Amino acid sequence: MTKTLTFDETPPEGTINFGLGQPSPELLSVPIIKKASEAFIQDARPLDLNYGSAAGDPRFTHALAEFLTREYGVKADASSLMVTNGNSQALDFVCTIFTKPGDTVFVEEPSYFLAFKILADHGLNIVGIPIDEDGIIIEEIKKALEIHKPSIFYTIPSFNNPTGYTTSEARRRELIALSQSHDFLIVADEVYQMLSYYEDPPMAFGSMTESGTVISMGSFSKILSPGMRLGWIQSSPSLIQKALEYGVINSGGSLNHYTSHIARYAIELGLQEDHLVHLRTTFKKRVEAMDDALTSVLGDTLSWQRPKGGYFFWLTLPDGMDADELRAKADSYDLGFQPGSRFSSRGKLKHFLRLSFSYYWEDDIRDGVERLSKLIADG
Amino acid sequence: MTKTLTFDETPPEGTINFGLGQPSPELLSVPIIKKASEAFIQDARPLDLNYGSAAGDPRFTHALAEFLTREYGVKADASSLMVTNGNSQALDFVCTIFTKPGDTVFVEEPSYFLAFKILADHGLNIVGIPIDEDGIIIEEIKKALEIHKPSIFYTIPSFNNPTGYTTSEARRRELIALSQSHDFLIVADEVYQMLSYYEDPPMAFGSMTESGTVISMGSFSKILSPGMRLGWIQSSPSLIQKALEYGVINSGGSLNHYTSHIARYAIELGLQEDHLVHLRTTFKKRVEAMDDALTSVLGDTLSWQRPKGGYFFWLTLPDGMDADELRAKADSYDLGFQPGSRFSSRGKLKHFLRLSFSYYWEDDIRDGVERLSKLIADG
Repeated sequence: MTKTLTFDETPPEGTINFGLGQPSPELLSVPIIKKASEAFIQDARPLDLNYGSAAGDPRFTHALAEFLTREYGVKADASSLMVTNGNSQALDFVCTIFTKPGDTVFVEEPSYFLAFKILADHGLNIVGIPIDEDGIIIEEIKKALEIHKPSIFYTIPSFNNPTGYTTSEARRRELIALSQSHDFLIVADEVYQMLSYYEDPPMAFGSMTESGTVISMGSFSKILSPGMRLGWIQSSPSLIQKALEYGVINSGGSLNHYTSHIARYAIELGLQEDHLVHLRTTFKKRVEAMDDALTSVLGDTLSWQRPKGGYFFWLTLPDGMDADELRAKADSYDLGFQPGSRFSSRGKLKHFLRLSFSYYWEDDIRDGVERLSKLIADG
Repeated sequence: MTKTLTFDETPPEGTINFGLGQPSPELLSVPIIKKASEAFIQDARPLDLNYGSAAGDPRFTHALAEFLTREYGVKADASSLMVTNGNSQALDFVCTIFTKPGDTVFVEEPSYFLAFKILADHGLNIVGIPIDEDGIIIEEIKKALEIHKPSIFYTIPSFNNPTGYTTSEARRRELIALSQSHDFLIVADEVYQMLSYYEDPPMAFGSMTESGTVISMGSFSKILSPGMRLGWIQSSPSLIQKALEYGVINSGGSLNHYTSHIARYAIELGLQEDHLVHLRTTFKKRVEAMDDALTSVLGDTLSWQRPKGGYFFWLTLPDGMDADELRAKADSYDLGFQPGSRFSSRGKLKHFLRLSFSYYWEDDIRDGVERLSKLIADG
């Protein structure tokens, strides 16, 4: 068995683990948190330590709305927002509020494997819908809708995990039309929306909520600090209202009041946007280092599309090669990655693998790709 | 309709709202949070901002174990602990993991009304079991077990909300025996366990987990800051293991990594324990002010037991008087409280009312009790 790293571990010295979908430590900026936290504490009133209001502190939701307006390029309103504990918790409570056990949920095939467990915790029947380089495939969804009546379509529309693929704006609009005609919710995990390294991605689902069938989940995990466990939902008034009836909020108020103060100061002091620029610059170099290295040593063996954002390369192995088998041998090459089967809701996709470029500098990326090349050659 | 205050509001100037189950602002200590936060930031490493390990940062769970050992007077082990987002979220995820819709949950009658919504979110069938001045009544539970097969017994064993009643150690042990023979989980909300103003309360359920049927939920909300949304579960190894399989933790790591660092420093710097002493001293004065005021102006009209801890007085009205009707008239006396019916899972308890003494200084408490006396006299 390959050892899975726990969240607070670093890979053993000498190992290059492209399986880690996390920023590298030097991208977790203690100085930013220090400045934002000190600015908050300097101004803090006792009530800032109390239960926060249900949708989140209004000063935070206003700062967030302005931030989203600038980042998404579409006017966001504070009243369309509510605080969450990050996207994993948001998906969990959306399931609590909007589904019941036995309901069907559509996911992309492939999709984020750790979401499957959250959906399974709610007794949902998971149906994977194939995607291509332009994201969701409307014909595939229509076919599935002839058989199933989903409560939810869970999608990672921009820079999908694991493929890096992005759903075009046209397909987004078609999906919204289907959600209206077939009465399901689109739950869009937009965690990579701001991590775009070339042109802007298509309009965020967070900016397309007029249909009343869209819940966009955003997060500070990938743009500031995962440990803050802070995210948001952006949606239409009636869905926000329904979400606010969640018993936990009723009892405990804002799902993360304290860390929302820190994020507010990070936004207001301009630290968040400066950091985003830094992240984009850094990750773009890593994308290109990985793309160049792959082209140079595995260009004839593997096929892939260079991602335009997010964290991941999705690689197709030659016929007959199995990523699970490669993964089992990778430890002796001091190499890690995720085999494609982990992202399939039905145990398929064995001839794919996911490499994350988020955790390593360019030299390590080149070194890791060399190891992958040796592993595949020794196959 | 009586306006319900939202979490981040203060009562209008001149109003005394004994309905608020919150600490008064001056008990939310910005200086403590400032010291703890600064000490954390001073030492912080980038990985402290990353996803935290599933059960919580080991430095935090060790500090918490030592704190609980001192406060509960029984050795607590870090391996018996896991981080939560506070007791509301903990109850929610315990329902996700350990129940399915249609299951029966026993609650105390009366019990914390906002827990009912959390249980209802999970489609649970709520059955209230009467309690008395010594807490849960074993005979009543046995009677209910002849009819129902609960998955969970949700109890607030020390200084129950709303009654202030405490279940004796003998009854706790009998409940544990029943949980074993009838195969249900005891989910103990121990949020008031450390808020004891006279003798020590009976042993916490957190110190009685050997049966493998007990989940104790503790929180920093009532002892440090509700806005930190930080709590813990203390349980036996197999239940902790099962809880850690929660999909949200699987995906997002520690349920509140950042604020756990601040709580760790508050414990290690001795600030948490100093603050507890301050809280106990302050609340004891408020209990006695309310008890004296009630005795002086309503001693012949109402009956009650002076609480030995927690936040609440539970008062019995004379025959024929209805707390809901009084509550509807209370606004014109600039007075607030909670009518007993809110705490009944079946709309009963109309001749009780709950007064919280946690939010006001003694002068306001006396003033508010005078208003209550006038309201009842005019009633």
